[in-house]
Amino acid sequence: MSGPGSHADRVARAALTWLVEPGHRVVWTLVQRAGAPAVLDRLLAGDIPDRSLRSAVAARSAAGDARRVAELGLRQAARIGARLVVPADPEWPARVDTLARLELDTAGRINQDTRPPLCFWVRGDLPLGETLDRSVAVVGARAATEYGEHVTLGIAAGLAERGWTVVSGGAFGIDAAAHRGALTANGVTVAVLACGVERPYPMGNAAMFDRIVERGLLISEWPLGSEPLRHRFLIRNRVIAAATAGTVMVEAAARSGATQTMSRVLALDRPAMVVPGPVTSAMSVGCHGLLRSHPATRLVTSVSDVLEEVGRIGEYLEPLPRGRERVRDRLDEESALILEAFPGHGRATPEELAAEARLDLRTVLRRLSLLEAAGLVARTESGIRLVRRDG
Amino acid sequence: MSGPGSHADRVARAALTWLVEPGHRVVWTLVQRAGAPAVLDRLLAGDIPDRSLRSAVAARSAAGDARRVAELGLRQAARIGARLVVPADPEWPARVDTLARLELDTAGRINQDTRPPLCFWVRGDLPLGETLDRSVAVVGARAATEYGEHVTLGIAAGLAERGWTVVSGGAFGIDAAAHRGALTANGVTVAVLACGVERPYPMGNAAMFDRIVERGLLISEWPLGSEPLRHRFLIRNRVIAAATAGTVMVEAAARSGATQTMSRVLALDRPAMVVPGPVTSAMSVGCHGLLRSHPATRLVTSVSDVLEEVGRIGEYLEPLPRGRERVRDRLDEESALILEAFPGHGRATPEELAAEARLDLRTVLRRLSLLEAAGLVARTESGIRLVRRDG
Repeated sequence: MSGPGSHADRVARAALTWLVEPGHRVVWTLVQRAGAPAVLDRLLAGDIPDRSLRSAVAARSAAGDARRVAELGLRQAARIGARLVVPADPEWPARVDTLARLELDTAGRINQDTRPPLCFWVRGDLPLGETLDRSVAVVGARAATEYGEHVTLGIAAGLAERGWTVVSGGAFGIDAAAHRGALTANGVTVAVLACGVERPYPMGNAAMFDRIVERGLLISEWPLGSEPLRHRFLIRNRVIAAATAGTVMVEAAARSGATQTMSRVLALDRPAMVVPGPVTSAMSVGCHGLLRSHPATRLVTSVSDVLEEVGRIGEYLEPLPRGRERVRDRLDEESALILEAFPGHGRATPEELAAEARLDLRTVLRRLSLLEAAGLVARTESGIRLVRRDG
Repeated sequence: MSGPGSHADRVARAALTWLVEPGHRVVWTLVQRAGAPAVLDRLLAGDIPDRSLRSAVAARSAAGDARRVAELGLRQAARIGARLVVPADPEWPARVDTLARLELDTAGRINQDTRPPLCFWVRGDLPLGETLDRSVAVVGARAATEYGEHVTLGIAAGLAERGWTVVSGGAFGIDAAAHRGALTANGVTVAVLACGVERPYPMGNAAMFDRIVERGLLISEWPLGSEPLRHRFLIRNRVIAAATAGTVMVEAAARSGATQTMSRVLALDRPAMVVPGPVTSAMSVGCHGLLRSHPATRLVTSVSDVLEEVGRIGEYLEPLPRGRERVRDRLDEESALILEAFPGHGRATPEELAAEARLDLRTVLRRLSLLEAAGLVARTESGIRLVRRDG
């Protein structure tokens, strides 16, 4: 009744996230050991050794009954087409659990608020985990320059055209350019929010958020009704770093949120990619500073540089065993048309496949990326080759 | 009579450089073993096992008597205020001899034309070696953009203000901006040419070359009258790489001369510094490409980044024992005034020293750099400290 994925588990995870900010080291560790419902009981009973945690829970409990707030939240979510995703769900994005591996830094800081999420609130139809399997984060300054937005649009559109999901934080500037670039290419994009998914912040991007719900996902660890408080963006950033195959930073001032995201990416040993800019631009100071100070960061100038980086670290290797099953099970009509479009000798160019399947080239390229990831086709120098399974 | 630095040695080195392009592996190695006069004798007698070298010498000898050409060259040089500097001279820039350390690459290519120079033809009054001791090369595209020239001017002026010599190749674009930046700051600059120093190439920079002769040095391995043949720029580039404490590349197209210079800098284990630019600029493609392909290259955005790099690898450590002697021996009047300007407690800011010594701040800063390099003053957080020798 209270096992992983049960109603009690869902309610407890939602309630815990309402009581204590996500990523909390103690709460996450206890949940791993005892399960969410038992930990919720202990927290509400004040039965917890960590004093600051105990007083935080007490203060929050004074504002309402955590379990009841969670139940109401789940019902409200159902009404507005949102859902709660927990680790027991098939669509849980397993990559975020690598946050558990983050080590303490010398000052004991890094894993204070950086444990994996307990749950995600999600708006949009795509399955969360699969959508994030082949994803790249593109982040940067809110006060972006025309140059930064131009480069971001190009990289995001290029990633989307090749079947990659573009993940960002929904903010003005580089974030918005990243989402828009993906949407322009009819691709998939995910906005990771630091507030309730029912009223994504900032309001100025409302029309964009509507399009993201239609074509991608809005996700947040925080329950419906949560305000985008300042410290939440920093907590949120670890999800952007951990949920994706790599992160691209396009413009950033000297000390910025994007730089903090990149420190998480580096700590997770994921590709930390940085787009340089004019050294005369204040909006590239953070980018150049990171490239100078962290030897592991990689300078990227184009979508092909980005793909080289995320390809190299075995994006294909890790999540594929699961991805392959899924893609084959739910082969969509477009993919089926493309596979049928191959001639007898099993080789064709994307253009030939588009003509034969009567699909536009962009759709064909996107589907081919997925089919390739699923091991059903392979790229060769002379075009695309059908990988025969029956031989 | 024919020992190092003798007239016969000078004539032979000048003659050898006229007969065979500088940097030649076989010629340089023979000169190291037997001395220049003996090697010239052997070459002119056809007594050399390397067939291509033998036929090159024969072809050149048909055009004139090498020894006579060299004698005439030395006389012409004296008339126009140029001089020949050979390794035995006190002003020989010892750092270029590290070219002897360059290893063969896997294709056996790298040290074909990269042996140290046999001699330098020099125009300008400053002593060559001392001028190059504290030097940084700034190189890049001829077809530079406004951005590239702007950044180059700033870095070159900043280096010059801090007492560093700016070295470049005298070409249009970044090279010219580097020389001009140093001249604008009343600093010292050296143009390393691929032709005779009596008619520096390109003609369009003639006025700049005149100013360089007044305030710095024009140098070349090639005898007076030599044409700036295409292949000579590549041979020349190794000198720019080897004569300086580090090299900054500001703008470069995909495959360019500047990139080749940088490959020499990297092979010599010197700081190879690259200024990034907009990824949308064709003139930064070579810069970003180098930063991506060579982990040892360092991204720099300002003169302080550059100084951090050339400071780090012990620029102060290697040439100092000699430099210290020299500076103290020939302490100029300005430096003496500055040392006298220190108050009794031995600490002052550059501004205070300038006021007390009645010198302009720029002169004080430049002299302080030299005095610091000579170990006579030290920088502290609270200003400049006099290093007492008598205590």
